[in-house]
Amino acid sequence: MTARVLDGQALAARLQAEIKPRVAEFVSTHGRPPGLGIVLVGNDPASHVYVRNKVKAGSDAGFRVDLERMPESATLDDVLALVERLNRSAAHDGILVQSPLPKSMGAGAQQCVFDAIAADKDVDGFGAESVGLLCQNRPKLVACTPAGIIELLHREDIAIRGRHAVVVGRSDIVGKPMALLLLHRDATVTICHSRTPDLAAVCRQGDILVAAVGRAGLITKDHVKPGAAVIDVGMNRVTDAAVAASLFPAGHPRLASFEARGSVLVGDVHPAVADVAGALTPVPGGVGPLTITMLMTNTLRAAVARGGASPSPASAS
Amino acid sequence: MTARVLDGQALAARLQAEIKPRVAEFVSTHGRPPGLGIVLVGNDPASHVYVRNKVKAGSDAGFRVDLERMPESATLDDVLALVERLNRSAAHDGILVQSPLPKSMGAGAQQCVFDAIAADKDVDGFGAESVGLLCQNRPKLVACTPAGIIELLHREDIAIRGRHAVVVGRSDIVGKPMALLLLHRDATVTICHSRTPDLAAVCRQGDILVAAVGRAGLITKDHVKPGAAVIDVGMNRVTDAAVAASLFPAGHPRLASFEARGSVLVGDVHPAVADVAGALTPVPGGVGPLTITMLMTNTLRAAVARGGASPSPASAS
Repeated sequence: MTARVLDGQALAARLQAEIKPRVAEFVSTHGRPPGLGIVLVGNDPASHVYVRNKVKAGSDAGFRVDLERMPESATLDDVLALVERLNRSAAHDGILVQSPLPKSMGAGAQQCVFDAIAADKDVDGFGAESVGLLCQNRPKLVACTPAGIIELLHREDIAIRGRHAVVVGRSDIVGKPMALLLLHRDATVTICHSRTPDLAAVCRQGDILVAAVGRAGLITKDHVKPGAAVIDVGMNRVTDAAVAASLFPAGHPRLASFEARGSVLVGDVHPAVADVAGALTPVPGGVGPLTITMLMTNTLRAAVARGGASPSPASAS
Repeated sequence: MTARVLDGQALAARLQAEIKPRVAEFVSTHGRPPGLGIVLVGNDPASHVYVRNKVKAGSDAGFRVDLERMPESATLDDVLALVERLNRSAAHDGILVQSPLPKSMGAGAQQCVFDAIAADKDVDGFGAESVGLLCQNRPKLVACTPAGIIELLHREDIAIRGRHAVVVGRSDIVGKPMALLLLHRDATVTICHSRTPDLAAVCRQGDILVAAVGRAGLITKDHVKPGAAVIDVGMNRVTDAAVAASLFPAGHPRLASFEARGSVLVGDVHPAVADVAGALTPVPGGVGPLTITMLMTNTLRAAVARGGASPSPASAS
């Protein structure tokens, strides 16, 4: 068996195409585009790349995207004041604060800022209220990666109801919201993690298996029920030749690429799982492209839910 | 094998005894007792019984307990205004609104009121923010029934870390918070429900099995791994003689009691599970007594976390 490839890139393109006419309709109804405020603090190079991609995706979708940059020296209070201004702004439907914040702000700063974003505008879904509403199955805005996976399963006609879903990883941004979304769609859900004995045996129960731990190739054929749908959330840059060789057979083009570049991007799922699984997301090109697309979906949803409140001269920013 | 009985009544008494000196210490430090505001709307007879028990438990513990009664005709706005007054009151550390609210308030009224309670005072732990904080493993106040079960497991030296815990039921007040609490204590967690195929096979994986569905005797010997710790959250009043006869053998004192009274209170776990389980909570006398005790624990915790803010003449109620 060779697993059906769940092409996240193609689905992301389809979803983006679907968003455009809805944005146009929003503009014609409300006289303004959906607005997304992105806060970027400091000089983290990866953050700059991520933010650039988000600005581009939003602009391509027809949104107003305001990138608010703050210096590395900004204080937590500065960031909270900016978030509060965006909370009050009628022109902004979604607010996103790129993580990580500068280390100097302290360990709790990131979550403090997430919590400060109004739940109506929390397009990353990381604030306490957003998470509580999700947990109680009355979500406003749901974290983009797990929301994208649900969309992928739905579009690919992979049934959730009555199936056993196994989620490996219990992070706040993927594992736990993923488990809740699957549970609310009537899956029996098991959550595993680093303290799970005999991980392979537990994973083999999954009709749907979601791996979100950040360990290259952790999930092998031995972990997968034949025919299962396997969703690979991992994004691991492998630079060790022995690890690369353990993932790809001699002569494989990705191994050749590793040899040429000195690194290769792989998921948490060993490529050989394709021999056992019924369907599998590739890395790259699986879950990744959907995450940014769901950010656009969330922003449009927030705009519609807010009823397209127009910016008033007093409150527009 | 006959399962060890996990005596919730005895543990509740012990916890209550432990609370008293901590309350006395709070009073001597802060010059006031921990304060609990209980809101009771309308005339539901069961609610009156529950509230009376809560008032008594709080008073016995040395708390100030204010019972705020509102007529059946009260509006949602009336209740919200009262909650807001209690939120601002320096004398009240915990706020509890007894459910159900009168049906005339509409289906969403209950959750709307829960969400209005300040998270610092949400001693039932039902508001969106409280639930989100729990989900992100930074809880302030946790729903009393699952918190009581964790306390019971801890006091009875039943290990959680690395064990497989199976939770049957996915309610907002027991199943989901229970699963999260077990997960955060390093259990591998499976959540089952009415859509789970072959429930018995899934349950049999549980080193810890929590049943919280409200179906008398649903969990039979066939559902239980030999030696497992079984926690029975169900409280079902059986009035059908055939059901009673299926639960207790002829001549059993509880069956005699059923025949005398016409009803018997049973859990979700069939009594014969005691032959297979390693430990088992009885019904009644298991989880039930712990729930009200955890309400007291939560109120004291809230009071201490608030730093014993003294009532100022302006804000005291």
